Amino acid sequence: MRIRHTVSFRLRHAAGSPEEQSFLGAAGELAAIPGVEQFELLRQVGTKNEFDYGISMEFADQAAYDGYNEHPAHVAFVQGRWLPEVEDFLELDYTEL
Amino acid sequence: MRIRHTVSFRLRHAAGSPEEQSFLGAAGELAAIPGVEQFELLRQVGTKNEFDYGISMEFADQAAYDGYNEHPAHVAFVQGRWLPEVEDFLELDYTEL
Repeated sequence: MRIRHTVSFRLRHAAGSPEEQSFLGAAGELAAIPGVEQFELLRQVGTKNEFDYGISMEFADQAAYDGYNEHPAHVAFVQGRWLPEVEDFLELDYTEL
Repeated sequence: MRIRHTVSFRLRHAAGSPEEQSFLGAAGELAAIPGVEQFELLRQVGTKNEFDYGISMEFADQAAYDGYNEHPAHVAFVQGRWLPEVEDFLELDYTEL
């Protein structure tokens, strides 16, 4: 079953800083990992939460999602960028109802 | 600027109950409110949060979003169904980065 994987997040970096731009650039490279479809890097503009950005992507099925999670480029991003640079986040994954 | 309005939520109703089905049916009717585009009623399947469902819709601009918020059918849904039947929720709104 097709899965939409989303994450909303807030960075430790100041808005408009070079560090923020560097992080967003690195996040955009996740789009190249095999199995990733409909990749979107988004700005979170709602006022009822504390997140500033979002990422949304789709996978054809759970196997494609697993392949992404285990891909060396994803693992390296999580360890090298996500964990040290993200202050808070929430993952939400959706399928058709 | 185009806006994607999303909300993840958990109902007070038991899974599979007639009350849950009734709520989801009523939520689906929001799609008919003027200005609502790309309406989706979704199942939340991620294990790192406590939400069971999601709704996603898009608006061409803030004026369309405001029109939806103020529309009598939306106001009636919030008062008559959402507030009494939803246990917890989180709204996230996105624009292009």
